[in-house]
Amino acid sequence: MKNAFYAQSGGVTAVINASACGVIETTRKHPDKIGTIYAGQNGIIGALTENLIDTSKESSADIKALKHTPSGGFGSCRYKMKSLETNKAEYERLIEVFKAHDIAYFFYNGGGDSADTCLKVSQLSESMGYPIQAIHVPKTVDNDLPITDNCPGFGSVAKYIAVSTMEASFDVASMAATSTKIFVLEVMGRHAGWIAAAGGLVDDSIPVVILFPEVDFDEKKFLAKVDKNVKEFGYCTIVVSEGTKWPDGRFLAEQGARDDFGHAQLGGAAPVVANLIKDTLGYKYHWAVADYLQRAARHLASKSDVEQAYALGEAAVNMALEGKNSVMPAIIRTSNNPYTWKIGSGELKDIANVEKMMPTNYISDDGFGITDTCHEYLQPLIEGEDYPPYKNGLPDYVVMKKVMADKKLVPFEV
Amino acid sequence: MKNAFYAQSGGVTAVINASACGVIETTRKHPDKIGTIYAGQNGIIGALTENLIDTSKESSADIKALKHTPSGGFGSCRYKMKSLETNKAEYERLIEVFKAHDIAYFFYNGGGDSADTCLKVSQLSESMGYPIQAIHVPKTVDNDLPITDNCPGFGSVAKYIAVSTMEASFDVASMAATSTKIFVLEVMGRHAGWIAAAGGLVDDSIPVVILFPEVDFDEKKFLAKVDKNVKEFGYCTIVVSEGTKWPDGRFLAEQGARDDFGHAQLGGAAPVVANLIKDTLGYKYHWAVADYLQRAARHLASKSDVEQAYALGEAAVNMALEGKNSVMPAIIRTSNNPYTWKIGSGELKDIANVEKMMPTNYISDDGFGITDTCHEYLQPLIEGEDYPPYKNGLPDYVVMKKVMADKKLVPFEV
Repeated sequence: MKNAFYAQSGGVTAVINASACGVIETTRKHPDKIGTIYAGQNGIIGALTENLIDTSKESSADIKALKHTPSGGFGSCRYKMKSLETNKAEYERLIEVFKAHDIAYFFYNGGGDSADTCLKVSQLSESMGYPIQAIHVPKTVDNDLPITDNCPGFGSVAKYIAVSTMEASFDVASMAATSTKIFVLEVMGRHAGWIAAAGGLVDDSIPVVILFPEVDFDEKKFLAKVDKNVKEFGYCTIVVSEGTKWPDGRFLAEQGARDDFGHAQLGGAAPVVANLIKDTLGYKYHWAVADYLQRAARHLASKSDVEQAYALGEAAVNMALEGKNSVMPAIIRTSNNPYTWKIGSGELKDIANVEKMMPTNYISDDGFGITDTCHEYLQPLIEGEDYPPYKNGLPDYVVMKKVMADKKLVPFEV
Repeated sequence: MKNAFYAQSGGVTAVINASACGVIETTRKHPDKIGTIYAGQNGIIGALTENLIDTSKESSADIKALKHTPSGGFGSCRYKMKSLETNKAEYERLIEVFKAHDIAYFFYNGGGDSADTCLKVSQLSESMGYPIQAIHVPKTVDNDLPITDNCPGFGSVAKYIAVSTMEASFDVASMAATSTKIFVLEVMGRHAGWIAAAGGLVDDSIPVVILFPEVDFDEKKFLAKVDKNVKEFGYCTIVVSEGTKWPDGRFLAEQGARDDFGHAQLGGAAPVVANLIKDTLGYKYHWAVADYLQRAARHLASKSDVEQAYALGEAAVNMALEGKNSVMPAIIRTSNNPYTWKIGSGELKDIANVEKMMPTNYISDDGFGITDTCHEYLQPLIEGEDYPPYKNGLPDYVVMKKVMADKKLVPFEV
């Protein structure tokens, strides 16, 4: 009987731990088939440095609590393994660690870059003669993985942005007669506007202008639209993606400003947009930058997202038990209304390094909103609430004990 | 039988509508004593311009839904009435409107400035011979009203900031090994650090450094503290009040920066603090500015806050029925653990223009955290959850129908 390895990779989310919970709980249901599941401390780096968390030392209650805990319970990392040709030593080290700890299953929980690493690991049997089954568990707030209907983590961010856009709009609407008329919310998504699109999920009675990375910023058209909204509704809410660019390709967030000491001033797109409106239209504004709050907001997670994250972790283990390798379980949408889905799968070779962009028919003709088709796609992903338990007014999130497996090898530098 | 007037004033909160609900529902229980309750459209301006919302036209279900709806359901305003001597015409107009609509009760829902307006209105019997009872309903996220244990709106902001600080810290903790080590969250509170203090409610295992407006920013000491945290915990979270100042009195948020066109660049304190850390300690950072999201976040309201906001609205009506004038119902804390409270009251002359600052023994000796005394004070205020109902993945907030009372007077310019 062989052991398994699980690691979290890249930016964490509100529900990546729900996938970890799915992987570990499902593994525990098959003690006759899979032995210990080791989690990499800080992702794949934990494998390379032989820093393996022995998850069998975590209580059932704590593993269960992962399902309602945001962030990466075992630590994540931003570390992309190079190609086999460029850095064979790293792959040899992986095999050395896998051998030392009798690991035959590799579960990698991440986005597009990680799918590429997982693909390379899945090929180790072939390329380096070490028998391993590598299964990728999808995760990314960027929602840019192909094949799967959506990516765990995205639905909860979308819900956070939609709710925040709604709440701030209610606020501004009640102040607009004598005070703030413009609210700008900056959201994540450097390459694609999936997250910004979620601002369009609020009711039509709320005037929201969305700035997508996919659409070059047209200052004149934008200001006209904002002004029209203020004149019609009394106020205007703007959801701006951090990836929104001027026609010359510069990010709005690159302000080119200098402080008193001549340091380049890093800003964020929200204050740029807000100041632009103030300078030209004269409206009083407020702006917010959600940053990590949006992806860490487990308190407002989408139930659909939590369930899918867990189901994908569970499916990954089942696929391993079925002898599969180099695959990723995926969400297949079977109906829109009511939203139904099932677990399907994709080959890692079709997933690694493939970025799913927003379809062009998801953005409205004027470039400032989402279409009905996009609304239909997004709506089910924010459905349902899944509240964490609270203690003393705060969510009762779990911290893993992180009992480390004994090291058997010489140290390795990454 | 006389009618009543209710208005929302100043910045809105997650629970000011709960007070409105308390006022209106309680009034409706006494149809033999109080007739129609008119709400000022956009606060006191609605009274001056005779834009009176006839709340009797709102359904019981909609009024009930105010309890779970953030923002100002009838519109608020930033408008401070001048003194009777400076602008007698405004007070005469108020009386004219009150007379025309047979209004004898004045409920004003606001903070310190509004308490002053309410006080002036309460003196109209004496100063201008118009019999009116004016009751102030406390509200302000700034938590700076005297007499009351706390101010409705504050507890929910505190909960939002504590939960957000916790969630973002979990996120950074799992990324810190290879990526972001610093997270900076900017919060409201230009004059007092009440809101920033809420960042100190997270568990001691999370390294949080708080920058208060009450404490001059000591760059060297601050950087040393941050560096120590990163070395000990691997990361550091900073909660910075928008009101934090350099020793020379300038706000951190005044960056003195200019963009490419020479426009003054408005930033926010968070990017300043983040850049300072990057420039000196070299740590990778992320920052967020919560802005209106924090005060509009009804989805994460404190149950204790919602209950108190409602109870104060209810108490205001009962006081009016008892014949009181020039008073404000207040929360009186009767025990800390368990937290118990009752409704008391204060005289407006003791409340108007009095600002309750954070006691100095609430800030830790090093100036970067809260004391146990402060923790004991704040803890009960974030207790309990009070979720709004959801529909299609979004909170089911209510929008008032706002049926306007017929105008009986000539227009009046404000």
